[in-house]
Amino acid sequence: MNKNYTDYSIAMKEIADLSGISSLLQWDQEIYLPKQSGASRARQLSLISGLLHEKSTSNSISTLIDDLLQSSNLSELERKNLEISKRDIVRRSKLTKEHVESSALLTSQAYESWELARSENDFRLFAPNLEKLIQLKQKEADLIGYSEHPYDALIDEFEPGMLTSNLDRIFGQLLSGLNELLSRKPAKINDDFMYFNYPKNLQWDAGIEVLKIMGYDFTKGRQDISTHPFTITIAPDDVRITTRIDENNLYEMMWSCIHEGGHALYEQGISTGTFGTPHSEAASLSIHESQSRLWENHIGRGNSFWIYYFDHLKNRFPEQLKAVQTSTFLNAINQVKPSLIRTNADELTYHYHIIIRYELEKQLIEGSLKVSELKDKWNALYKDYLKIDVPDDVRGVLQDVHWSHGSFGYFPTYTLGSLYAAQFYHSAQQQITDLEQQISKGNMAPLLQWLRKNVHAKGRLFTSEELCKQISGERLNDSYFLEYAKKKFI
Amino acid sequence: MNKNYTDYSIAMKEIADLSGISSLLQWDQEIYLPKQSGASRARQLSLISGLLHEKSTSNSISTLIDDLLQSSNLSELERKNLEISKRDIVRRSKLTKEHVESSALLTSQAYESWELARSENDFRLFAPNLEKLIQLKQKEADLIGYSEHPYDALIDEFEPGMLTSNLDRIFGQLLSGLNELLSRKPAKINDDFMYFNYPKNLQWDAGIEVLKIMGYDFTKGRQDISTHPFTITIAPDDVRITTRIDENNLYEMMWSCIHEGGHALYEQGISTGTFGTPHSEAASLSIHESQSRLWENHIGRGNSFWIYYFDHLKNRFPEQLKAVQTSTFLNAINQVKPSLIRTNADELTYHYHIIIRYELEKQLIEGSLKVSELKDKWNALYKDYLKIDVPDDVRGVLQDVHWSHGSFGYFPTYTLGSLYAAQFYHSAQQQITDLEQQISKGNMAPLLQWLRKNVHAKGRLFTSEELCKQISGERLNDSYFLEYAKKKFI
Repeated sequence: MNKNYTDYSIAMKEIADLSGISSLLQWDQEIYLPKQSGASRARQLSLISGLLHEKSTSNSISTLIDDLLQSSNLSELERKNLEISKRDIVRRSKLTKEHVESSALLTSQAYESWELARSENDFRLFAPNLEKLIQLKQKEADLIGYSEHPYDALIDEFEPGMLTSNLDRIFGQLLSGLNELLSRKPAKINDDFMYFNYPKNLQWDAGIEVLKIMGYDFTKGRQDISTHPFTITIAPDDVRITTRIDENNLYEMMWSCIHEGGHALYEQGISTGTFGTPHSEAASLSIHESQSRLWENHIGRGNSFWIYYFDHLKNRFPEQLKAVQTSTFLNAINQVKPSLIRTNADELTYHYHIIIRYELEKQLIEGSLKVSELKDKWNALYKDYLKIDVPDDVRGVLQDVHWSHGSFGYFPTYTLGSLYAAQFYHSAQQQITDLEQQISKGNMAPLLQWLRKNVHAKGRLFTSEELCKQISGERLNDSYFLEYAKKKFI
Repeated sequence: MNKNYTDYSIAMKEIADLSGISSLLQWDQEIYLPKQSGASRARQLSLISGLLHEKSTSNSISTLIDDLLQSSNLSELERKNLEISKRDIVRRSKLTKEHVESSALLTSQAYESWELARSENDFRLFAPNLEKLIQLKQKEADLIGYSEHPYDALIDEFEPGMLTSNLDRIFGQLLSGLNELLSRKPAKINDDFMYFNYPKNLQWDAGIEVLKIMGYDFTKGRQDISTHPFTITIAPDDVRITTRIDENNLYEMMWSCIHEGGHALYEQGISTGTFGTPHSEAASLSIHESQSRLWENHIGRGNSFWIYYFDHLKNRFPEQLKAVQTSTFLNAINQVKPSLIRTNADELTYHYHIIIRYELEKQLIEGSLKVSELKDKWNALYKDYLKIDVPDDVRGVLQDVHWSHGSFGYFPTYTLGSLYAAQFYHSAQQQITDLEQQISKGNMAPLLQWLRKNVHAKGRLFTSEELCKQISGERLNDSYFLEYAKKKFI
């Protein structure tokens, strides 16, 4: 290997290790940090962000990459890694170290105030920090630059190349498909049994069991409890997930475990041979979400998995589930019903939650909506799209952690991910013989191997769109999702 | 305030924050790190150590301090901070960045192999890393420099100014005092009740209660379970402790909680106004240990505390303790009996454990003892000093975490700490009216306030010896400990 390329790999690994350290600080902040040490943690996160920015935009790494790109003896993989790293540096260099540090400081503070606001059920405690964050994000959009809409500059961080105008088109089309599907009145389903008492430790054990069935490697990861479930990569062999458990609501834990498990399988499956280079990173957030959604919905709410697993669940909760048939259970977990909480929404109405957030973010960033108007607007959109009243802030505008993290442009990737998931799963069904039969025997290996090969192992060498074409032969096409939905829900 | 002095404070704070980040990486490694990610964590720790070394020995901070020390408008506190920081830089600058990084890498690996060796009960799995560590420490002693003994250079890190020849004298004197005390055959005590079943969660709750009584602030700290109990400071408002619980041995948890609680009260009590400067750091490890030992022994094994707390403990464990009188309980927790495990040893034989480790470390570092001979020598010394046979490695040479951390010269501070504790507690009893009476009512505030004022608030502005003189009017004097022991144990 080219000596300079080795230097590049070492530098990228060091940057990735710093980033992993930052992830541990965040992981700890969301799970274990003592109540009064938020300010110190904010300072530590800011410090690491500054170092990270410094190292990842340094002249030395930049020159090294430029020189290497002139060289002719590079493998195709090496060239791709370098080209993508180059793009990253150009993007990152548009932000100053001060901007990155104050952004880290502010988001850490904002997270603390969001936590507080939630515990007090009062959006006003979060609003001042949110306002500052939006100003910062507007500034960021200006620094990054955009040709059509400032929001484009922010989406780009999560979904490279995606534009607001594209999203308007994709979401518009999806909305009309969904409206049609949802115009039919769903059958009333009695799911009282989902709200019986399911003791915490028994739910925990079931979640761990399901994660193991999926293929999540607990020797290279762990699960903890947090307010908002998430997946975080601290090192290639340290991919952690969290969940939350409601003793009186079985919906809460199980699909959060499967969802985060899907994210974690992706991270655990990404090549570690070149840790720190694009080859060992996730393609994009929408591809990430395609993995979590594929597991959560196509497996976790599918017939095949529950043919296998429902007896196991019944063994764990014999009293609670004794009168429940597999089909009744499947009906319960697949009922379509407008609801308040995004993370608990069904597969169809889920996208209204996303579209609401998308509309709000766009307006906040372009300045046509003020933070002081946000709560009312949120509630109005829920009334408009989902016909429901938002009873309080915790179940409304305070329900998601994302804004407190300064993540604007993130939500759309959830819907994109669902669309990719449907398209990919359709391909998997065509390419894997007996897929459903294997799943109904509890054998997830064929699916996981297929995902490893077609998605995970490719890292960030291809865009979402390129990956999609490689896998399914065509670009993102929402008809796969709508067809799947029609078959399942009508 | 002098503008340059503000710059100095900011730089020191940043260094302290980096150090806190390193502490979080260690904390996580000892408690939550997935099994297979030890190598990644080692890399991350090494990276932070390198950064820390770079920042704390940089020309800019060094020049800043030198310039400031020339200036005349400094307060006494400012000058002291600067002088001590200067000494630190001189010491640290003797070590290269490479040495510090490879040391961090090796200790992280050594910790993993110690954990493995413990789980396999096989010292040979730890020996190769220990050998490398000793070579590294010998090199470190050479780099730091010493006039009498290479071990002096290592002790100095934990107990500034202390020499091997001093320790030989102090330990020799103590040994003859102890031998005399222990020549009397102790009364046989029936303490079967200490080995009844005490469920984990109930023990946990009792530990938390005792920590609260002591005054440990859980809003600025937390407790977790680890293999080896420890206290670690991640930020001035984030001082964490760990404990371990044996369901069939009440000795294990309670005094580990009180011991670590004592350390944590010290860290929580250190001035945070100048975080990162010597004023906000602990004086030395022996002073640290004086705090943990004072609470563990003078309070936690004292009559007054148990007059208050024994009823509470009985309420938590009514079945297990129903037949036990306070005096019986006190006899049990104060029995003197040679034992295998240092952390469970009584107040007298404890020091034989330390002296054994001291002898071994000295010989390992000076090269007169090889790692291949260590286990046999360990077992021989236990036979010699304590008249007991070591049945296996876990209860022998593998029992302590310190060597895996590369901490040589640390153990002696435990005994020094006990001697300081006795001397300080004697002063506290003289200076606080009704001290024992307050404690027997569960009121620890007078003692904690006294410690805050006389020890904690002084940070690292004074050496152990200076502090000792300020508090007790004289230098370290082992007769306080021996007098206390005579009163208590004869």
